[in-house]
Amino acid sequence: MITSASNLRMKQVIQLNKKSKTRYQERVFVAEGIKMCLEAPREQIQQMYVSESFLAEEKNRQRIQDYSYEVVSDTVFSRISETKTPQGILCLVQMPEYGLEELLRQSPHLLILENIQDPGNLGTMIRAGEGAGVTGVIMDRTTVDMFNPKTIRSTMGSLFRVPFYVAADLQETLSELKERGIALYAACPDGERLYDEPNYTSPCGFLIGNEANGLSDRTAALADVRISIPMEGQVESLNAAVASALLMYEASRQRRQRR
Amino acid sequence: MITSASNLRMKQVIQLNKKSKTRYQERVFVAEGIKMCLEAPREQIQQMYVSESFLAEEKNRQRIQDYSYEVVSDTVFSRISETKTPQGILCLVQMPEYGLEELLRQSPHLLILENIQDPGNLGTMIRAGEGAGVTGVIMDRTTVDMFNPKTIRSTMGSLFRVPFYVAADLQETLSELKERGIALYAACPDGERLYDEPNYTSPCGFLIGNEANGLSDRTAALADVRISIPMEGQVESLNAAVASALLMYEASRQRRQRR
Repeated sequence: MITSASNLRMKQVIQLNKKSKTRYQERVFVAEGIKMCLEAPREQIQQMYVSESFLAEEKNRQRIQDYSYEVVSDTVFSRISETKTPQGILCLVQMPEYGLEELLRQSPHLLILENIQDPGNLGTMIRAGEGAGVTGVIMDRTTVDMFNPKTIRSTMGSLFRVPFYVAADLQETLSELKERGIALYAACPDGERLYDEPNYTSPCGFLIGNEANGLSDRTAALADVRISIPMEGQVESLNAAVASALLMYEASRQRRQRR
Repeated sequence: MITSASNLRMKQVIQLNKKSKTRYQERVFVAEGIKMCLEAPREQIQQMYVSESFLAEEKNRQRIQDYSYEVVSDTVFSRISETKTPQGILCLVQMPEYGLEELLRQSPHLLILENIQDPGNLGTMIRAGEGAGVTGVIMDRTTVDMFNPKTIRSTMGSLFRVPFYVAADLQETLSELKERGIALYAACPDGERLYDEPNYTSPCGFLIGNEANGLSDRTAALADVRISIPMEGQVESLNAAVASALLMYEASRQRRQRR
């Protein structure tokens, strides 16, 4: 049993939780909680750690009986955990990697994010994206790291299943998508059409920008159509995750009715 | 200038931020930041506090020139603020109060919440509700207090404008709504209809339950129709604010197209 937080492997977990740089160097991230650990693809789990008191419960032992794991004292577990009341289980998971191709299967339906800063928002978007049936999520390099603990938690496991692609140069990737016949719709406050007017049953991508400032002019200019979600009252904008979900589910609704 | 955090009025601000009980005893809450303070209805502002460095900027002085305010040292302001990098302005605002009647004007379109626990989620729902044009938000007593600082912040000012009603007995209120001809739709994982099938152009209310457990059986049983948002992949549920927004905006979309 590991009883010291200065154990090198415990230090590794702490670093992986704290630093995006460490995650990308090792190409590993931390998935915490029983649901997340059991949803992680088996072949991508590098290591599983459980706390003493987690293991003390028969039900827990049964759920992880097919896994190999290491036991950590409760005190140490609370140090490596990112939550206030840890469930007592976490694992190190190899980062999935996808090529852009893998996001464009069947009839592409993409969520494309620029400069999203709130980790919880990003996770909520990925979760809603899976629900709406997107074929992938594309992010620019200024969007918060999707493998930070808050984002992972708010995806509720969707990050294991939704193909994603971090674009080194978003404008370049958008040009490529357009060449492949994917219509790009930019969510803007001053869109030329309402969000429920275009036909999204053909290959499409929704561009969503930063929570406070929206899309950059350069990115919005590459869209085929600028669309708006109508807002009553004095609302100036919607939460970025809410706006994304409304757009992705409008495409989902149209595609469902067309089947 | 107030230079001590043990000043009784500074203590009052700290208490109002921390304790729901204090807020309801005094029927006052704290709105922080320049946007929130300027959006607060003038007649409901009881007191405005600004920091020394806020007041040092000419632009800021102009924005609040019509208000009476008190100056607080930067050190004390950081103590009474709920944010890490305070803007240097907050005000104490009298709680608005509405009767149920005031939520039922014109063609009612209600968001009805049971046991919502995440303050940010609640704020996001109120903000999306204003955008979707709801006529009011009804909450049960186990829903988190909408005047806590995190909720206020995530409403982005909508809490000043969306009529709300905290039901002492939610079941009783629901019965009353039904008697008045308002159709109640419960968001459930096993709904009998998809969320975009019913006609929401008549008076309607959407019931949304707790983030982890959904609606209680007792409450769901009072709905006229149980509706579901279809989810692809392995998603078990959507974030509660996302789900609410999808329902409210579906009603909004139908009502807009009917105009």
